[in-house]
Amino acid sequence: MRVLAVGAHPDDIEFLCAGTLAKFKEKKVDIFMSYLCNGDKGHFEVPSLELARIRKKEAENSAKILGAEVKGGMFPDLDIYPDDKARGKVVDLIRVARPDLIITHSPKDYMCDHTMTSKLVVDASFIATLPNYETEHEPHTFIPPIIFMDTLAGVNFLPTEYVDITDFVDIKEKMLLCHQSQCKWLKEHDGIDYVGFMRKVASFRGLQCGVPYAEAFRSYSVWGRVKAKRLLP
Amino acid sequence: MRVLAVGAHPDDIEFLCAGTLAKFKEKKVDIFMSYLCNGDKGHFEVPSLELARIRKKEAENSAKILGAEVKGGMFPDLDIYPDDKARGKVVDLIRVARPDLIITHSPKDYMCDHTMTSKLVVDASFIATLPNYETEHEPHTFIPPIIFMDTLAGVNFLPTEYVDITDFVDIKEKMLLCHQSQCKWLKEHDGIDYVGFMRKVASFRGLQCGVPYAEAFRSYSVWGRVKAKRLLP
Amino acid sequence: MRVLAVGAHPDDIEFLCAGTLAKFKEKKVDIFMSYLCNGDKGHFEVPSLELARIRKKEAENSAKILGAEVKGGMFPDLDIYPDDKARGKVVDLIRVARPDLIITHSPKDYMCDHTMTSKLVVDASFIATLPNYETEHEPHTFIPPIIFMDTLAGVNFLPTEYVDITDFVDIKEKMLLCHQSQCKWLKEHDGIDYVGFMRKVASFRGLQCGVPYAEAFRSYSVWGRVKAKRLLP
Amino acid sequence: MRVLAVGAHPDDIEFLCAGTLAKFKEKKVDIFMSYLCNGDKGHFEVPSLELARIRKKEAENSAKILGAEVKGGMFPDLDIYPDDKARGKVVDLIRVARPDLIITHSPKDYMCDHTMTSKLVVDASFIATLPNYETEHEPHTFIPPIIFMDTLAGVNFLPTEYVDITDFVDIKEKMLLCHQSQCKWLKEHDGIDYVGFMRKVASFRGLQCGVPYAEAFRSYSVWGRVKAKRLLP
Amino acid sequence: MRVLAVGAHPDDIEFLCAGTLAKFKEKKVDIFMSYLCNGDKGHFEVPSLELARIRKKEAENSAKILGAEVKGGMFPDLDIYPDDKARGKVVDLIRVARPDLIITHSPKDYMCDHTMTSKLVVDASFIATLPNYETEHEPHTFIPPIIFMDTLAGVNFLPTEYVDITDFVDIKEKMLLCHQSQCKWLKEHDGIDYVGFMRKVASFRGLQCGVPYAEAFRSYSVWGRVKAKRLLP
Amino acid sequence: MRVLAVGAHPDDIEFLCAGTLAKFKEKKVDIFMSYLCNGDKGHFEVPSLELARIRKKEAENSAKILGAEVKGGMFPDLDIYPDDKARGKVVDLIRVARPDLIITHSPKDYMCDHTMTSKLVVDASFIATLPNYETEHEPHTFIPPIIFMDTLAGVNFLPTEYVDITDFVDIKEKMLLCHQSQCKWLKEHDGIDYVGFMRKVASFRGLQCGVPYAEAFRSYSVWGRVKAKRLLP
Repeated sequence: MRVLAVGAHPDDIEFLCAGTLAKFKEKKVDIFMSYLCNGDKGHFEVPSLELARIRKKEAENSAKILGAEVKGGMFPDLDIYPDDKARGKVVDLIRVARPDLIITHSPKDYMCDHTMTSKLVVDASFIATLPNYETEHEPHTFIPPIIFMDTLAGVNFLPTEYVDITDFVDIKEKMLLCHQSQCKWLKEHDGIDYVGFMRKVASFRGLQCGVPYAEAFRSYSVWGRVKAKRLLP
Repeated sequence: MRVLAVGAHPDDIEFLCAGTLAKFKEKKVDIFMSYLCNGDKGHFEVPSLELARIRKKEAENSAKILGAEVKGGMFPDLDIYPDDKARGKVVDLIRVARPDLIITHSPKDYMCDHTMTSKLVVDASFIATLPNYETEHEPHTFIPPIIFMDTLAGVNFLPTEYVDITDFVDIKEKMLLCHQSQCKWLKEHDGIDYVGFMRKVASFRGLQCGVPYAEAFRSYSVWGRVKAKRLLP
Repeated sequence: MRVLAVGAHPDDIEFLCAGTLAKFKEKKVDIFMSYLCNGDKGHFEVPSLELARIRKKEAENSAKILGAEVKGGMFPDLDIYPDDKARGKVVDLIRVARPDLIITHSPKDYMCDHTMTSKLVVDASFIATLPNYETEHEPHTFIPPIIFMDTLAGVNFLPTEYVDITDFVDIKEKMLLCHQSQCKWLKEHDGIDYVGFMRKVASFRGLQCGVPYAEAFRSYSVWGRVKAKRLLP
Repeated sequence: MRVLAVGAHPDDIEFLCAGTLAKFKEKKVDIFMSYLCNGDKGHFEVPSLELARIRKKEAENSAKILGAEVKGGMFPDLDIYPDDKARGKVVDLIRVARPDLIITHSPKDYMCDHTMTSKLVVDASFIATLPNYETEHEPHTFIPPIIFMDTLAGVNFLPTEYVDITDFVDIKEKMLLCHQSQCKWLKEHDGIDYVGFMRKVASFRGLQCGVPYAEAFRSYSVWGRVKAKRLLP
Repeated sequence: MRVLAVGAHPDDIEFLCAGTLAKFKEKKVDIFMSYLCNGDKGHFEVPSLELARIRKKEAENSAKILGAEVKGGMFPDLDIYPDDKARGKVVDLIRVARPDLIITHSPKDYMCDHTMTSKLVVDASFIATLPNYETEHEPHTFIPPIIFMDTLAGVNFLPTEYVDITDFVDIKEKMLLCHQSQCKWLKEHDGIDYVGFMRKVASFRGLQCGVPYAEAFRSYSVWGRVKAKRLLP
Repeated sequence: MRVLAVGAHPDDIEFLCAGTLAKFKEKKVDIFMSYLCNGDKGHFEVPSLELARIRKKEAENSAKILGAEVKGGMFPDLDIYPDDKARGKVVDLIRVARPDLIITHSPKDYMCDHTMTSKLVVDASFIATLPNYETEHEPHTFIPPIIFMDTLAGVNFLPTEYVDITDFVDIKEKMLLCHQSQCKWLKEHDGIDYVGFMRKVASFRGLQCGVPYAEAFRSYSVWGRVKAKRLLP
């Protein structure tokens, strides 16, 4: 089995589903991590180009912990729109990853790169199967189901599925801490405790389903995506 | 594992989740079938007492096909209300069945015995665990999760979970056909094709999730019931 | 065609659907108006018994304007509960009226007599067809569809259907004015302009659907009630 | 009366509302069928250009059965976006068709051409009335109401209106069978029974509203579109 | 200003809105705390009568910390139903407390005493104003607005309003710890950390609205209850 | 405090929130009014360029009544899309206005310029804070909360907050009347009573919350925007 997780920026996957990915990994599932935007605007002081370089490295370090492939940063931050250019690149991402399951942002998340990532992934994962839509890579052989991650801080999100990540929350934290550029300046500038934020959400979602730590999800429900079984670990 | 299915009348379980029960059975799960009302008003010609007797027999025949225990008919049709008497009996049903999982009607189903069954089962399954609520039987040792069945003809119901019952739809039909009192007069008087109705719904739900036949469900989401795993087979 | 409108108190029908009833009447539909509670607590000064007597008279006057049958006040205000007594009386109401369509309160309306009326009518209209549920009157021959009226002041209500009552708003007002006991003390004590209230809602609902005055509704959607045609005039 | 039905691809209208169109036709309503995309990517083997040509012919054959005008394929598949080019062409489509009612895809349907068609039609049908938005054709004289068709396989769709198509399901099937390019390869490659799929949905929607076959819809509810009458046949 | 908080059992108010009550208190608002059920079934070992006595004392101790009046335990646990007896007592509670605002359980909370408390309070708070509904106490002079508290563990609850309780979370904890009978056996028997549970929820709700600790609410939206201002502190 | 109100066209703000703005103004809040489109297509006879000029003047007159700054018309009508050009200009609008609170259209409003305005404002108000997203103006220092205005005629809108504008409805009317180009031709051509329309909605929204005139709103609920206090006056 192959799982593709697509976030908007280099640390989103870590924040919202790394525990689940680690659990998948333990079950010998191949993990492919991606982030559409290179994160070049996620800092108040470091300039774009340098920031993109730093964050690429951070994403690679994080993926290494999981033993996951990683490919991302095809767009500058805030430069993804519903157009042909973006769609084509995401189609290729999916054609390369060839996932059995995709995990991505909720269409109701808190900022535009997240919601646009959600839309691009949804659209492209259908298109990826069509031979007459030609790109660099071969068509994927089936339309993969999609699961949406929790929104940031769980605002306006009613989960339909939970994953117990109690045994994987430390890996999740370690992966998150690879993103030092974010972790550091969020603390210094905004007083936001990066890891504490993640643990608050994970322990609340755990409380809801009766375990110490959990991640929360909703399935994407349209024809061709609905399955008569659980896809999450 | 033990599963308790509770319908309002003798044939509701067969109609709405017998395929899933058969699938559970194949996995060596113990099945306990129940119906709160004795079905004594479900006919235009047969008088109440005789009808209740007939339908009890029919329910037993159906349960036999599955190798399930069956206990039901504690109330006349249309005689369940949110009161102490009804609640106590349903608490005892649960204390006897001791289920790991309960399947019952949606709170939005099409007539009052169905919606009241849903409510009584939800309430009683919590109460069943409390020693200070004394009844004939010992308290259950934990609060079981609950899954709601599809509504009749799927009206106003958005499923969150499906069960592939392709290999069990024939057993489902056989169980349904045990309820000859219903099957016959519905055809004669109302022109309703009992088995055809069931198959239409099952094949539509199958279409939605990509299999020939399926049953559809929604989980009951309140604290203490939410689980980080799939409960259905 | 026969339409049964059931409100909680003597003036609710007038307030929420009299325009539609008048429009039905013009199309030669027989109208049957009912109110479950006698209105005996709807005043701060007039004592219960006297008030019930007054309001019965007012309801009759209003129905006369429409040429409608009227039967109501089977219960004191605030004395309807989900029990056998109430259900039986409402079953009989339906068996007497024998409606092709029932109009009643929204299950989300603003006070308990309204929501309980909604529930009793929904439940009883199914039961009314069952011969084994014996009451004074003969079973109804089919399960009638139900349409819910707007909530008071339209709070928390998203209509799915509108009726243009522009030509009938004056009749509606005249009917409303029959309920002098309400009209007068609401103005004196609470400064509420009875007729003005009604016109504000009707003109707002009209604005939404492009006519001067309208009434708003939602259909009750469960199996056996859904129809492939419009039921409202 | 004039009805414009707009699907994303050449067979969508047939699949989701041809029964309703046939019923309209019987009532002497003029039917205008359209599909925004030429269907050039809806096959795994036939190349784009040839496929577009074939499907245009198929759409014409289908429209002929109904005696409907047809105009479509203004865009290649997957080449419609929220931009000025697409909008202008859809405005012109509406200015040519001059509909009293538009039927199009649900904004929640299963793939991006469907959801974008829905959005383009909604937006363009307002714009079509504005003289200062200049295109090849004269402005339409009023903003037409819009009704959304069922989603594919009815997933995540709660209908508010149904049309009984029992007498028209054979015409619907005949129209669908005009789309041989789809019908054939879906069966050969994916084992999908094209006509069986349609009949399953239509008979399920029929079951919900008490007729043998039905199509299901939801109205688009914003100011200027809401009407105090039924628009469907 | 007077605020009445009504929970189902002696510790519910503490769990779900004590921070808000403490904040109200600081603003010189009079607080009236109530719990409808005496808590006599909330333990696996202590028998009913003794338990009710203990919990009454615990509730008084907790109220004392706040300087609030407290009155409760009018019913045994699980002995509240939609009937005249329960309604009358809750009407009297409101007529005694005479609140400007009522805070109570969400109608979607996790067990039947909670949901029934919600319903009884909603219904009774309307009735309390009617002179013709006679009880021991004088009618209340207006219909108070109602705000629903978070559900247990926030399951299935989308807040519309938050209260920052950062400065009051310690008082909340102190009040909660008055309920030693619950605190102790929940830890011993179920491994549930009473205070930890509360803090997890409060810090998650805080995270959502940008403060260290918060409580979450939804307003009850029906006519007569909606206000054009914030009612919470 | 600084409030920025952004409508799609020159008179939208007046129609949907001018009463609230006037109330803010009275509390010494600085008001910044904007409209993204220049209104050049909002007439059936006056040509685009002339119309844009007229409407700019009308908007200025209206803002003058309030003593508000006004800046708008950066785009022709129907020329805003989800692209970089539009986003950049709206980012600059926010960087210039530097609001503590933004009021804009509901994402579910009745035509595309309204819904696109809503989206652009939501997206841009996040981006406006990021230094690496460079525009003409300095980054805003925090992400402002957003409140959505009522939809046109309140269709499909369930308010969560109301503002009593009784004392400000005359100012609102006066501001609206500045838009003579709209007021006049809507009456002449469509028989729409501009001011009457506004008063119908305001008095209906007032009825719902117990005051003579009100405006209705919903908060935008995502992380970073939710506040533990009321933002409206």
